[in-house]
Amino acid sequence: MLVMMKKDATTAQIERVVSRIRDLGYQTHVLPGAVRIAIAVTGNDRAVRVENLESLEGVVEVVSVTKPFKLVGRDFKPENTTIDVRGVTIGGDDLVVMAGPCSVESRDQILEIAERVKQAGAHLLRGGAFKPRSSPYSFQGLKEEGLKYLAQARDRTGLGIVTEVMSTEHVGLVAEYADVLQIGARNMQNFTLLEQVGRMGKPVLLKRGMSATITELLLAAEYVLSEGNYQVILCERGIRTFETALRNTFDVGAIPVLKQLSHLPVVADPSHATGDHTKVAPVARAAIAAGADGLILEVHPRPAEALTDGPQSLNPTEFESLMAQIERVGQAVGRSLHARR
Amino acid sequence: MLVMMKKDATTAQIERVVSRIRDLGYQTHVLPGAVRIAIAVTGNDRAVRVENLESLEGVVEVVSVTKPFKLVGRDFKPENTTIDVRGVTIGGDDLVVMAGPCSVESRDQILEIAERVKQAGAHLLRGGAFKPRSSPYSFQGLKEEGLKYLAQARDRTGLGIVTEVMSTEHVGLVAEYADVLQIGARNMQNFTLLEQVGRMGKPVLLKRGMSATITELLLAAEYVLSEGNYQVILCERGIRTFETALRNTFDVGAIPVLKQLSHLPVVADPSHATGDHTKVAPVARAAIAAGADGLILEVHPRPAEALTDGPQSLNPTEFESLMAQIERVGQAVGRSLHARR
Amino acid sequence: MLVMMKKDATTAQIERVVSRIRDLGYQTHVLPGAVRIAIAVTGNDRAVRVENLESLEGVVEVVSVTKPFKLVGRDFKPENTTIDVRGVTIGGDDLVVMAGPCSVESRDQILEIAERVKQAGAHLLRGGAFKPRSSPYSFQGLKEEGLKYLAQARDRTGLGIVTEVMSTEHVGLVAEYADVLQIGARNMQNFTLLEQVGRMGKPVLLKRGMSATITELLLAAEYVLSEGNYQVILCERGIRTFETALRNTFDVGAIPVLKQLSHLPVVADPSHATGDHTKVAPVARAAIAAGADGLILEVHPRPAEALTDGPQSLNPTEFESLMAQIERVGQAVGRSLHARR
Amino acid sequence: MLVMMKKDATTAQIERVVSRIRDLGYQTHVLPGAVRIAIAVTGNDRAVRVENLESLEGVVEVVSVTKPFKLVGRDFKPENTTIDVRGVTIGGDDLVVMAGPCSVESRDQILEIAERVKQAGAHLLRGGAFKPRSSPYSFQGLKEEGLKYLAQARDRTGLGIVTEVMSTEHVGLVAEYADVLQIGARNMQNFTLLEQVGRMGKPVLLKRGMSATITELLLAAEYVLSEGNYQVILCERGIRTFETALRNTFDVGAIPVLKQLSHLPVVADPSHATGDHTKVAPVARAAIAAGADGLILEVHPRPAEALTDGPQSLNPTEFESLMAQIERVGQAVGRSLHARR
Repeated sequence: MLVMMKKDATTAQIERVVSRIRDLGYQTHVLPGAVRIAIAVTGNDRAVRVENLESLEGVVEVVSVTKPFKLVGRDFKPENTTIDVRGVTIGGDDLVVMAGPCSVESRDQILEIAERVKQAGAHLLRGGAFKPRSSPYSFQGLKEEGLKYLAQARDRTGLGIVTEVMSTEHVGLVAEYADVLQIGARNMQNFTLLEQVGRMGKPVLLKRGMSATITELLLAAEYVLSEGNYQVILCERGIRTFETALRNTFDVGAIPVLKQLSHLPVVADPSHATGDHTKVAPVARAAIAAGADGLILEVHPRPAEALTDGPQSLNPTEFESLMAQIERVGQAVGRSLHARR
Repeated sequence: MLVMMKKDATTAQIERVVSRIRDLGYQTHVLPGAVRIAIAVTGNDRAVRVENLESLEGVVEVVSVTKPFKLVGRDFKPENTTIDVRGVTIGGDDLVVMAGPCSVESRDQILEIAERVKQAGAHLLRGGAFKPRSSPYSFQGLKEEGLKYLAQARDRTGLGIVTEVMSTEHVGLVAEYADVLQIGARNMQNFTLLEQVGRMGKPVLLKRGMSATITELLLAAEYVLSEGNYQVILCERGIRTFETALRNTFDVGAIPVLKQLSHLPVVADPSHATGDHTKVAPVARAAIAAGADGLILEVHPRPAEALTDGPQSLNPTEFESLMAQIERVGQAVGRSLHARR
Repeated sequence: MLVMMKKDATTAQIERVVSRIRDLGYQTHVLPGAVRIAIAVTGNDRAVRVENLESLEGVVEVVSVTKPFKLVGRDFKPENTTIDVRGVTIGGDDLVVMAGPCSVESRDQILEIAERVKQAGAHLLRGGAFKPRSSPYSFQGLKEEGLKYLAQARDRTGLGIVTEVMSTEHVGLVAEYADVLQIGARNMQNFTLLEQVGRMGKPVLLKRGMSATITELLLAAEYVLSEGNYQVILCERGIRTFETALRNTFDVGAIPVLKQLSHLPVVADPSHATGDHTKVAPVARAAIAAGADGLILEVHPRPAEALTDGPQSLNPTEFESLMAQIERVGQAVGRSLHARR
Repeated sequence: MLVMMKKDATTAQIERVVSRIRDLGYQTHVLPGAVRIAIAVTGNDRAVRVENLESLEGVVEVVSVTKPFKLVGRDFKPENTTIDVRGVTIGGDDLVVMAGPCSVESRDQILEIAERVKQAGAHLLRGGAFKPRSSPYSFQGLKEEGLKYLAQARDRTGLGIVTEVMSTEHVGLVAEYADVLQIGARNMQNFTLLEQVGRMGKPVLLKRGMSATITELLLAAEYVLSEGNYQVILCERGIRTFETALRNTFDVGAIPVLKQLSHLPVVADPSHATGDHTKVAPVARAAIAAGADGLILEVHPRPAEALTDGPQSLNPTEFESLMAQIERVGQAVGRSLHARR
């Protein structure tokens, strides 16, 4: 259950609600928000009797929630959430494409590719400065230097930046440069990181963990929302199964499930899902056909020379072709590519 | 390696090729075919020296094959295979839709739904007379009676019939009625059944096993082709993973992988993949966007009353709506719905 | 629900019970048995009122069953089932070991290995005459010739024979030779085969499918029992997961779960589970420690020369060493190796 | 490849080796160590020519490494690593048992259970003060208060403490209290956390991620070792598969695989693997039979009242019984329970 209170409810009003609920034997979690304050009630196996609550001062309404997640669910907020990133709206009618290299490798590389993806119609620039790698001996990213190059690419192109933050100690640093903070699949249940990112007030792109259920993904998002940050973009990027023909198994069915359960935008990452640039386009088209709000794609000026993820990176020509395909499939499901201003 | 011989090669010519290959220490498998006779060579870890073979009488060409499967692969036959079922071409430029109930439940039910799916544009009628069920206490289908009703529905509507054969002892019976013999997911590695079905000379729809790799699916198809029947339709129907939000995880990435590796048509079964009629349309659209040649869909006149698989069955109105969506997505990827003659 | 009737209940008595249950709106399944006749009642979502049934003539008792499986469950039969194979008791206090090659390759091979495994203490001889192979080009077994060699090995050693039957058309043939009919993992849901095997009156070793749940394994066994054959041995042989370090993931936890849910004996197949002869011993010990009633193991006189499954086959020396280890672990959990008579 | 240098090698000596290797076009990673300094060489697809290196001053030997992991592998260190925790040796001949509640819930609870597990023969006390929870609304642990209670329990009983650290910002705090720092399954690829924990010089218990391959687990351990901390205990705790009868699928085969590939101790966590206290004992016995060096077990004075993980917690009586079983199975595989000093 959620008790929604006015944004300007007084501390005394909140405490009265909280103590009333606790008297009934439940726990409360006061959740700040931009528009309203929510008080999540947990510990109730069955529906709580609510008459006594709606009459309290400051209370706007009481929302019954039947799922383990609350703020991310459609019970709490039926209409779609839209997120604005430098004039680009994610989660609205239009499709949004984030593109760029797996890793920022040099100033020249990121400036070149930023121009190319912009020309081809991309809306945001992706690129990793901090790279989570299975082996300690692999390239770990240019770190702050990479962030600076991303910022320069943004200055040149106007494209907002999506980049990963791997560690609580770098949240502040990454947030200085990034327009969207990405949480990678391996960190989806790094709860401390989720909390800290939740406090930065910047949009978050949350990737589904390799073996995370849809419910776990939504609960991970709940960590961010429960810190008062409602700007979370969910990302399906393939799950780990027995099949090894592609790097992961893209769970296309997760897209309509997430859209049904949650009001948050859902994007797809066909590059990591497939690990094979020749399969990126068909999976990207499938994601849009299934209802995704956008894509995040790896594009590299010369994939064969990429320091990371070359085999799954599109070259600029392949990316241009894919943008045209996305546009056509989008139209077939009633959606246009976002018109950049 | 495959040695391709003229269709009218004599027994003596074949034996000469076989003995020459065996002398080199390899095994041979003589594979009958409608157009040519193929001799598969196995037991060779590396490429076989071929000069000596192409000069033998009756030999058309020698094909090098680097995969465990041979006849189903593009090495053997680069161009797409098309299969004709009562004037409907599967695997060609156009999209084909097979629709109907999970089970044939009564004469009235199948006649009613056959008319409905035909009106909505379906090309073939699906319906189970023999039903594989996890429990021996569940409804096992109407068996031969069901086959007769399917034949009556075909007489009325002109729609060819796709129906499952579960057992070697029923292959002859089912083949008397069916236009396409379906092998279910649980029987994908019932090799004796594959061989027998391979000998019937009728098109086969082969469903991917719940935990079968793509390579295993292609090797299962190879069993059918190696009996001389090249008319196999591959079907992605979802795999078993840890995710339980839907019944299975639809492996949309398998579609472009199969199309790349094999010349056989690939269709998708979003009904079994999702187990939820509200998710059938987005997954169906995704499959087409990813390059599938068609769909097999469960449609029931009154899903709530279905004896089997009601929750995943579309009602006729939902089906009509989906046909329109498929048409639009098909156009976006350059394909039309097959025009029924 | 199960209605248990006397073995000599008359047809009229059975029909009276059946019609009484059907009047209540449920379905009935009359299940023959060696000791009693069971009537399974399905279609009841909640408990059926039973007063009216126990008073009918011929009825012994009415058993409430809360699981989808009935005859295989402990609700139906709380005490362990024991199965006698040529004087060897499976499912009793003592541990039973079945050993032999993956495939019967020649008369000499099977006679040699039969002697060796007997000397080392094995209780039954395993060996495949019909081999299910992913590829149609792989060695498919010696078929009837192999069965004859197995019979000769039995004549020489006195060891009962466990061998696979792959197809309904060979059930009669295999049953002529075998003491235990094995159903392989790929055929676990070949329901027609299960039914036919259920009618042969011979013990059945039923392997868990590669991606079968424990419930599905028990329902597959139910198919055999519902034909009147209560002699089923369940076999855990590893499931398919994302981990590729070994061939399959041995689900050791399935052993206590199966022992809790079912009265049937449970054995383990560490050879197929691991695919690596150096890992067979630790997994075999683990299975016994977890409560398995026995093991089925691949042993080959010269694994490097095996036609199938060489890498996972123990040589006779390794097998002797393992028998000693099994004996010690067995004693630690209160069980001895069966003493051959 | 690894170049092993004397512990007292000078900076100049190290630099000479590094520059020589870089001249050959490879990357170097200087890895501090207690006994020797290792220089890992990466970027070599094939074996590096080594003559020129072994003659350089300060170089002890050059170790060829064929796996992606280096320091954790048996190539680098063939003999078993043993780790001493307050006089308890982990990874040696004897078995070690860590026991205690999932969460520290109160001072009384932890003191009571510490006494009980000690009496029953446990060697170390486990208990969570920081709890990673899927939902932000679940009990998150007593945090520093919990650590203090653990320290009091250690003062009373002499048992060393194993407790989880979830976040880089708490590494220092947790290390003040803990004898063994636990990295949970969800954080197995939180690389920043692994690096920081690697710098604390305290033993680390590293749990396998829910969908981590064995190679990924070893690479995660490599992160800790590459910071100079060689005291890592690997922990198999079940993987996520399609089977839902138990909470996870305990991968018993991983134990001999890990012991073969790595010199590090391997323990098992049957409590999280099964999620069911009635299945903990069989899986614990299986782990020991398969070669595990010890166990980590959840024991609660009154499981029904536990705030977390009650269903999988043993009560003290069950734990005593299990200790006796472990002792017997241990003896069967040639190992004794560690004798507490």
